[in-house]
Amino acid sequence: MIRYFIQLSFEGTNYHGWQVQNNANSIQAELQHALSIILRVPIDVTGAGRTDTGVHAKEMFAHFEVETAILDLIKLTFKLNSILPADIAVQEIMQVPTDFHARFSATARSYEYHLHQSKNPFKQTHSYYFNRELDVDAMNQAAQLLLDYTDFSAFSKSNTQTFTNNCTIYNAIWEIKEEGLVFHISANRFLRNMVRAIVGTLLEIGVGKYPAEEIHTIINSKDRGEAGTSVPACGLYLTRVEYPFPSN
Amino acid sequence: MIRYFIQLSFEGTNYHGWQVQNNANSIQAELQHALSIILRVPIDVTGAGRTDTGVHAKEMFAHFEVETAILDLIKLTFKLNSILPADIAVQEIMQVPTDFHARFSATARSYEYHLHQSKNPFKQTHSYYFNRELDVDAMNQAAQLLLDYTDFSAFSKSNTQTFTNNCTIYNAIWEIKEEGLVFHISANRFLRNMVRAIVGTLLEIGVGKYPAEEIHTIINSKDRGEAGTSVPACGLYLTRVEYPFPSN
Repeated sequence: MIRYFIQLSFEGTNYHGWQVQNNANSIQAELQHALSIILRVPIDVTGAGRTDTGVHAKEMFAHFEVETAILDLIKLTFKLNSILPADIAVQEIMQVPTDFHARFSATARSYEYHLHQSKNPFKQTHSYYFNRELDVDAMNQAAQLLLDYTDFSAFSKSNTQTFTNNCTIYNAIWEIKEEGLVFHISANRFLRNMVRAIVGTLLEIGVGKYPAEEIHTIINSKDRGEAGTSVPACGLYLTRVEYPFPSN
Repeated sequence: MIRYFIQLSFEGTNYHGWQVQNNANSIQAELQHALSIILRVPIDVTGAGRTDTGVHAKEMFAHFEVETAILDLIKLTFKLNSILPADIAVQEIMQVPTDFHARFSATARSYEYHLHQSKNPFKQTHSYYFNRELDVDAMNQAAQLLLDYTDFSAFSKSNTQTFTNNCTIYNAIWEIKEEGLVFHISANRFLRNMVRAIVGTLLEIGVGKYPAEEIHTIINSKDRGEAGTSVPACGLYLTRVEYPFPSN
């Protein structure tokens, strides 16, 4: 079998997340459907990870296998983009060694969370409208404290089936933009709902509900009930998945 | 009566344009509904002009009248934004002399037309995806020729009821952006569908269907059939309406 990686981006508003589900549309289903039509064999694709309903991706990867080599990958990319809906775009398809795995070979993932502070009709599905005043210094102080921990059970959906709730966060910082804020976070892996729970907690610090140091108590509790409310999916973007490619 | 101007912006994707229509939602209807709820009297609003289905506005103005002065215009703006849907935002409400008219007092209008040349899932309702190669120099040469004319019947829907098809175009230029092009055009007034017909014609010049000088023949024909196909509404933005305000 010959294995290919697909680099894609999508606007998640109209999808029930990445993964195929009964009676709900998903990015994975759209991709499998389009590839199967073009290649005339049923194709399964494996993603770098699941994304939740409404979450976007500026950079996402998936892999699939075929029995015979695809001769023209640029043509395949073009055909895929013609068949796929306007809210899913494929940037590149490349051959990889068969032990390269979209999910397990990934060494790091980065997300951005976008919020805007004045009502903006053009951002409704691309950013979270949050119009309360925020203490960005306190939010950044709290974000830095995340880097001292590895067990993020307090920011995870309790019913997720994972072997470990340990993650190594590489960076976490709020950037001030003209019309709002962007939170940048990178880690080797993320737990389900983790970024949105972290952002929700940092916003509660930002509005002065509790001080930045409360992050210690929240993380040590390992209790999702201690952390802040999750923010909406519309502001969340998967922005980068890193692999040990020579070129990546 | 006391007259107020409203400055607003909207994402036009979900509306059948500005004007109230039976069985179709419109920006005007949303605005009248929200104002009538807050002010507890039926309110009619008059816009700076009609916009077509799906067209956006970064800056639009409308006026309305009430019998007694509104004491707190900032509070009214806040309440309006709370009631209006997420795709309509009010920036400011200001009192004006009663002879100031949102449509008839406007001295100039500006539009932008956005197109992107690589498939981008985040732009599907905000820009026109046009992936053919374009000769931007020829398009700009043709755009400049527009300024030599005043009768733009060739770019107007034939069934519109206007006294004159004369417009004075102040500027018309294509700007090259990172991911595509933006066409900027300003005039004292625009005919129905005019910007989209001009852009469609300039794109036909851009792909080499005919040379820039063909603009002369098209305009002189005064025949809509001679000009290019209108481009989709999703890329069109009303960006500025000018009034003889001291502050504007």
